[in-house]
Amino acid sequence: MATIDLNADLGEGFGRWTLTDDEALLGVVTSANVACGFHAGDPSTMRRVCELAAARGVRIGAQVSYRDLAGFGRRSMEVPRSELADEIAYQLGALDGFARAAGAAVGYLKPHGALYNRVVRDEQQAAAVVDAVLAYQRGSGRALPVLGLPGSALLAAAEAAGLPVVTEAFADRAYTAVGTLLPRTEPGAVLHDPELVVERAVRIARDGEVVAVDGSVVPVRAQSLCLHGDTPGAAALALRVRAALVAAGVGVRAFG
Amino acid sequence: MATIDLNADLGEGFGRWTLTDDEALLGVVTSANVACGFHAGDPSTMRRVCELAAARGVRIGAQVSYRDLAGFGRRSMEVPRSELADEIAYQLGALDGFARAAGAAVGYLKPHGALYNRVVRDEQQAAAVVDAVLAYQRGSGRALPVLGLPGSALLAAAEAAGLPVVTEAFADRAYTAVGTLLPRTEPGAVLHDPELVVERAVRIARDGEVVAVDGSVVPVRAQSLCLHGDTPGAAALALRVRAALVAAGVGVRAFG
Amino acid sequence: MATIDLNADLGEGFGRWTLTDDEALLGVVTSANVACGFHAGDPSTMRRVCELAAARGVRIGAQVSYRDLAGFGRRSMEVPRSELADEIAYQLGALDGFARAAGAAVGYLKPHGALYNRVVRDEQQAAAVVDAVLAYQRGSGRALPVLGLPGSALLAAAEAAGLPVVTEAFADRAYTAVGTLLPRTEPGAVLHDPELVVERAVRIARDGEVVAVDGSVVPVRAQSLCLHGDTPGAAALALRVRAALVAAGVGVRAFG
Amino acid sequence: MATIDLNADLGEGFGRWTLTDDEALLGVVTSANVACGFHAGDPSTMRRVCELAAARGVRIGAQVSYRDLAGFGRRSMEVPRSELADEIAYQLGALDGFARAAGAAVGYLKPHGALYNRVVRDEQQAAAVVDAVLAYQRGSGRALPVLGLPGSALLAAAEAAGLPVVTEAFADRAYTAVGTLLPRTEPGAVLHDPELVVERAVRIARDGEVVAVDGSVVPVRAQSLCLHGDTPGAAALALRVRAALVAAGVGVRAFG
Repeated sequence: MATIDLNADLGEGFGRWTLTDDEALLGVVTSANVACGFHAGDPSTMRRVCELAAARGVRIGAQVSYRDLAGFGRRSMEVPRSELADEIAYQLGALDGFARAAGAAVGYLKPHGALYNRVVRDEQQAAAVVDAVLAYQRGSGRALPVLGLPGSALLAAAEAAGLPVVTEAFADRAYTAVGTLLPRTEPGAVLHDPELVVERAVRIARDGEVVAVDGSVVPVRAQSLCLHGDTPGAAALALRVRAALVAAGVGVRAFG
Repeated sequence: MATIDLNADLGEGFGRWTLTDDEALLGVVTSANVACGFHAGDPSTMRRVCELAAARGVRIGAQVSYRDLAGFGRRSMEVPRSELADEIAYQLGALDGFARAAGAAVGYLKPHGALYNRVVRDEQQAAAVVDAVLAYQRGSGRALPVLGLPGSALLAAAEAAGLPVVTEAFADRAYTAVGTLLPRTEPGAVLHDPELVVERAVRIARDGEVVAVDGSVVPVRAQSLCLHGDTPGAAALALRVRAALVAAGVGVRAFG
Repeated sequence: MATIDLNADLGEGFGRWTLTDDEALLGVVTSANVACGFHAGDPSTMRRVCELAAARGVRIGAQVSYRDLAGFGRRSMEVPRSELADEIAYQLGALDGFARAAGAAVGYLKPHGALYNRVVRDEQQAAAVVDAVLAYQRGSGRALPVLGLPGSALLAAAEAAGLPVVTEAFADRAYTAVGTLLPRTEPGAVLHDPELVVERAVRIARDGEVVAVDGSVVPVRAQSLCLHGDTPGAAALALRVRAALVAAGVGVRAFG
Repeated sequence: MATIDLNADLGEGFGRWTLTDDEALLGVVTSANVACGFHAGDPSTMRRVCELAAARGVRIGAQVSYRDLAGFGRRSMEVPRSELADEIAYQLGALDGFARAAGAAVGYLKPHGALYNRVVRDEQQAAAVVDAVLAYQRGSGRALPVLGLPGSALLAAAEAAGLPVVTEAFADRAYTAVGTLLPRTEPGAVLHDPELVVERAVRIARDGEVVAVDGSVVPVRAQSLCLHGDTPGAAALALRVRAALVAAGVGVRAFG
């Protein structure tokens, strides 16, 4: 039986501002990418999301980012490798404190926004992310899985360092004929039809394939499906995706 | 034989800016109050100080603060108890990550600046600090000592919560006839004569007493002496204090 | 004929986060309190609100705050008078640049959140706010009106410095028998019944009086009514208030 | 008679931290690049530098930056054109407020750090800088000169927009045989011998030429010389450069 993990970004408010419907999403996902304060995520939100996730048995992931509240972590940045590694380790440690106080621990790491996109190809920054995870391993004895795009420099660097990696796919993103994501700058890059998103989610999870923009069917290797949580109706769509997966006989459970 | 711990604030730079001579001070103190990013202390500085401290066997303390880079943590703030506790836990977790990666762990907590002064009397904020330490204890199984002023609301709250407390005294501050610190707003509150500072340090550590502003001798209960690290000549003076303590037969070692 | 100014907080998002329905509120108010970046208000939002306000002839006010994104300016802070004055002048200058580029200029100043509450009584901080307005006057030749609570230290200091002052009242807040606001910590301090809010708005604007918590009628001196913009339904309620004022024969126009 | 402007970065502290010797440098330079709060420069420092500069007749320039305190503005960033323009306009407006309160006004703009380097070639970001200067022009009626590297995209965009441009050269940087700066990553890119720096300053200012790394003499078009202010001995070296220029018969005065 096919199984799939469901991950979504949570805790992406800051102080007075809220964005993600954390309670609803925690009823759907098996892995919660928790914002760690650099692009979003004030300490009280981090604590609450960790407590809720721990209570529901949802895995807690460190959704680490560039230091960029004003740009919501969407501004790609040149940061020297060691500085970037330290900034990521800082976020990871802070979240781990809340996760452990809630009776859990950080269970994986996933870069956010511009950092996520950049470490698809940027080997220096991918190495910085891995450095931070290795520092965490030195301190905790635990090798944290790294969640990312199949074929990315990040997952290659993580594997080379002996870390577990988790690949993810997107049911609401268009894929090219060679199995890569169509850049967001291209028309049709993001799918908005819920019906279609649900159908693609099932096909990815059950059959390991997706219909590309040219109509061809391409294989997609994914242990996790990324659901978006920061748009109106996001939690409802996530729930539909999960229900459809279960109905199609796909086991929904945390990776690993 | 009398023994005393020596603590000082370290890592109080931020990015391009430096303030404390961390390397020199780590050759003198037995406990390092490491800034955690809210009033000072960028992640790379935090990591380096932790690595140096761990290598030299100096105990690492979390020097937690209000969120106030612009005011260097010197702006007293109204923050609801749970928010303040979460902001302190965030800093504590972040520092603990670096400390553990360096083969150590956070060994105590000491509030910085305006927060330090406020929790002398403010019971709500004192409780918030203790809440953060208890959250850390839930996550790590370790009861972190709290370093502060004897008689403060903070130490009372920490003791009531079953946490170890460590009292500190200041060799370069004037004391009143009842054994409290003369407020900094009073003339003569801070002593600048190195000779005098050294002499007072020895008397506090060896004899448990200090000459008050009115000339009377008052008892001072202190397990740790706070040395200042952010002024020119600070490291040199700290070294003199340590040498004088040793010469007077006082054992200089970390508390507890 | 009685006239009244209507003011509301606008532009209180930051980057990815939005809060106030700026477009709708700009169709209702005559004075827009624009967040200046310290508690909310990223530069692009500031520019857009200024452009919209200028196009609609709505007066632009500098809604200045403590430096406190995480607490949304709701954390009361000890800040030395000259530092606070400079931080306020910084915000004022930044907003004025956007206002002037849009063909207008900052037309008044109103403190936000904890600063607003604090300068009701704190004479040092009230003086700091006035210092900033006087610095603006030196630079621009314009004496900026200060909007605040009648009887506050802020308005007293502004008047003593020769600045115009504008008093405001709240249709959705309970008043005591001596005409002061019932503190928010008291039950019933904030009124939620739209009908009642509308009725009180008319009575304040037309008759200069309000029914206090003990049932007595107390005089309220107000040149401006503050409408809240950061709650769901805020813009709709603001519109109802304005319509009721007009229907009651009250002229709705900017003060002064 | 040849004349030259001397510019240096000033006010590059933040809160508790200081970096540049502003008082000494204001006795040397004719143009002060004042940090505006995004990479350095708290409001009180901005005010003080403006007051000192105005009192001494030194021209005040807006040293605008990416929003990056932690990286001191040295992290190159992807920022959409309109967001970047607004962030620069924000800084410009804030500084202008202090400059005008001091009886002066902002007299030019110079990007800092990574932004300075990026707008040498990045036409989108160069356009964003120019957008901000044009917004300032709409608000003030004044066309602000833009200070930058000859041949840069920034100066090209500024000229195309009808803005005055000011070219600058560096006496302590190595030049290639085609008259461009040797990248800092190359060995010998920065010259540390004061004698040599002084000699090159005179040759650039008086003769419009510099000896390149290959020994050839290349023409350098510069209306301003950039002196560095953030290193020990910087102010002393700046003074020597100025004295040597005067001795060589070069008039030292603000551009334009």
